[in-house]
Amino acid sequence: MISLEELLGIEYPIIQGGMARVAKAPLAAAVSEAGGLGILGGASMTPEELRDQIREVRSRTSKPFGVNLMLQSEFWQDQIKVVLEECPPVITTGAGNPSSFMKTLKEKGIKILPLVGSANQALMLEKIGADAVIAEGKESGGHIGEVTTIVLVNAVLKTVSVPVVAAGGIVDADSYNAMRAMGAVGVQMGTRFVASEEAPISPAYKDVVLRANERSTVEVGRRFKHTVRIWRNNLALRLIDAEYRGDEQEFSQLMLGALIRAVEGDLENGAFMMGQSAGLIKDILPVKRIIQNIVGKSL
Amino acid sequence: MISLEELLGIEYPIIQGGMARVAKAPLAAAVSEAGGLGILGGASMTPEELRDQIREVRSRTSKPFGVNLMLQSEFWQDQIKVVLEECPPVITTGAGNPSSFMKTLKEKGIKILPLVGSANQALMLEKIGADAVIAEGKESGGHIGEVTTIVLVNAVLKTVSVPVVAAGGIVDADSYNAMRAMGAVGVQMGTRFVASEEAPISPAYKDVVLRANERSTVEVGRRFKHTVRIWRNNLALRLIDAEYRGDEQEFSQLMLGALIRAVEGDLENGAFMMGQSAGLIKDILPVKRIIQNIVGKSL
Repeated sequence: MISLEELLGIEYPIIQGGMARVAKAPLAAAVSEAGGLGILGGASMTPEELRDQIREVRSRTSKPFGVNLMLQSEFWQDQIKVVLEECPPVITTGAGNPSSFMKTLKEKGIKILPLVGSANQALMLEKIGADAVIAEGKESGGHIGEVTTIVLVNAVLKTVSVPVVAAGGIVDADSYNAMRAMGAVGVQMGTRFVASEEAPISPAYKDVVLRANERSTVEVGRRFKHTVRIWRNNLALRLIDAEYRGDEQEFSQLMLGALIRAVEGDLENGAFMMGQSAGLIKDILPVKRIIQNIVGKSL
Repeated sequence: MISLEELLGIEYPIIQGGMARVAKAPLAAAVSEAGGLGILGGASMTPEELRDQIREVRSRTSKPFGVNLMLQSEFWQDQIKVVLEECPPVITTGAGNPSSFMKTLKEKGIKILPLVGSANQALMLEKIGADAVIAEGKESGGHIGEVTTIVLVNAVLKTVSVPVVAAGGIVDADSYNAMRAMGAVGVQMGTRFVASEEAPISPAYKDVVLRANERSTVEVGRRFKHTVRIWRNNLALRLIDAEYRGDEQEFSQLMLGALIRAVEGDLENGAFMMGQSAGLIKDILPVKRIIQNIVGKSL
């Protein structure tokens, strides 16, 4: 099987998650420059912002990088136009079915790596041409599915023939080695890169990750078919309360703008998206060190 | 560090979970006889049943075995008396704090392996004398915590010095190898042994495990501080509904006797406790084959 390094033209099989409002050009370019695959979190960008961010990454590094698109974003059709014009080397996709534009992107030489939450979804995406799949367990931060990494990655590996990247709960050499031993060709990490020097967010957000233990996050929104994992702060408790009361309108109201508030450092009312792996993160490091700590120990 | 094989006097570092009403003498003895550590699920047994079951295991195998005690069981104090008289080689403990009898058991030469759901809990139990800890992720079946295997095992490994056994989502050589690569000395598996020839339960229960995919279970009861993972059948949907309405009395009423109904094969009203790993189980095998499939590939 082709390695992730060969498939993507990178040095180390480490992809940075395309976290909305966090994964901007300074972070993505730093990860690519360090030998991994940096990803722009396109979901929250207007088409013009996306174009500017792609160009900014290219001004910072000549190495491959990617763009994450959420197909439920209000901008996604215009974002696809920008992607076809700017041709970032890699696209990762979140919620939704990328079949309508898969062929067009592939004709441009763009690699497509969808995120998957079940083995059946992985099989469907392999059939329509995914170059690899990213199996993301529910220990991740932000929008999550129902299956945990150790089960999901194993199930996807036994279902598809394309390379499988493991995501969710991976944070250091030990978790990386576990996933490689299982058969994954590489890993995607989100929360570990939130606590990097280059992440262009409030220091307060990074401090939240540092102070967390492995039980500091909660899952909210399952009742409304929209589960996210966030830090258990005051907002989270209010979200849980609204969910218990079945008040979807209040839930949505509380979530409106809550990620922006987190990125700006509002500890009370921000939705600090982070995975359970936050409990294993004890330092804010330069991206290069984060990657070296993982591949150094495993080589 | 001492290996699990040396610590427990077993051939392979595989422990069978002490599933209430499933982990009885025929299963526990078969696992021990095959070189793993069989465990009696003591939580649901009266003291006299426990004594009979311990003696039955001894009549079937001369190899080491264990007893799982839940310290919230109505019988637990009398169960401790039976344990002190019968001296099974190993005790695993579930919910509750075993400090009150730790010393007495250890003086009898009994090894104590508590199940833990967080790094802090593991540290506390190491301090009071646990010989090893079993870090059990929330992908497990039955009563579960909040942290998933890949994060929990990693966090516990970085917190305690005693050996760490990984549990939750482990079902085959690939998942076993992943946990060994991370640093666990061995694994505990529950659901895989539910689908064994020797599990003394209705064939219908085993069929449920075979037919499941990795998304066939649900978590219920978190709102009432009593989260269990079960098959998503009619009972599960009624439990979720009661939970959403905040009706704890109805929830408890629905759960009453529901595990017995599952063991007897009642597909509508049974609580079929099983982990997400059910999605990876495709055959009912003799216990010996299950263990050989794991250690054979990894050796």
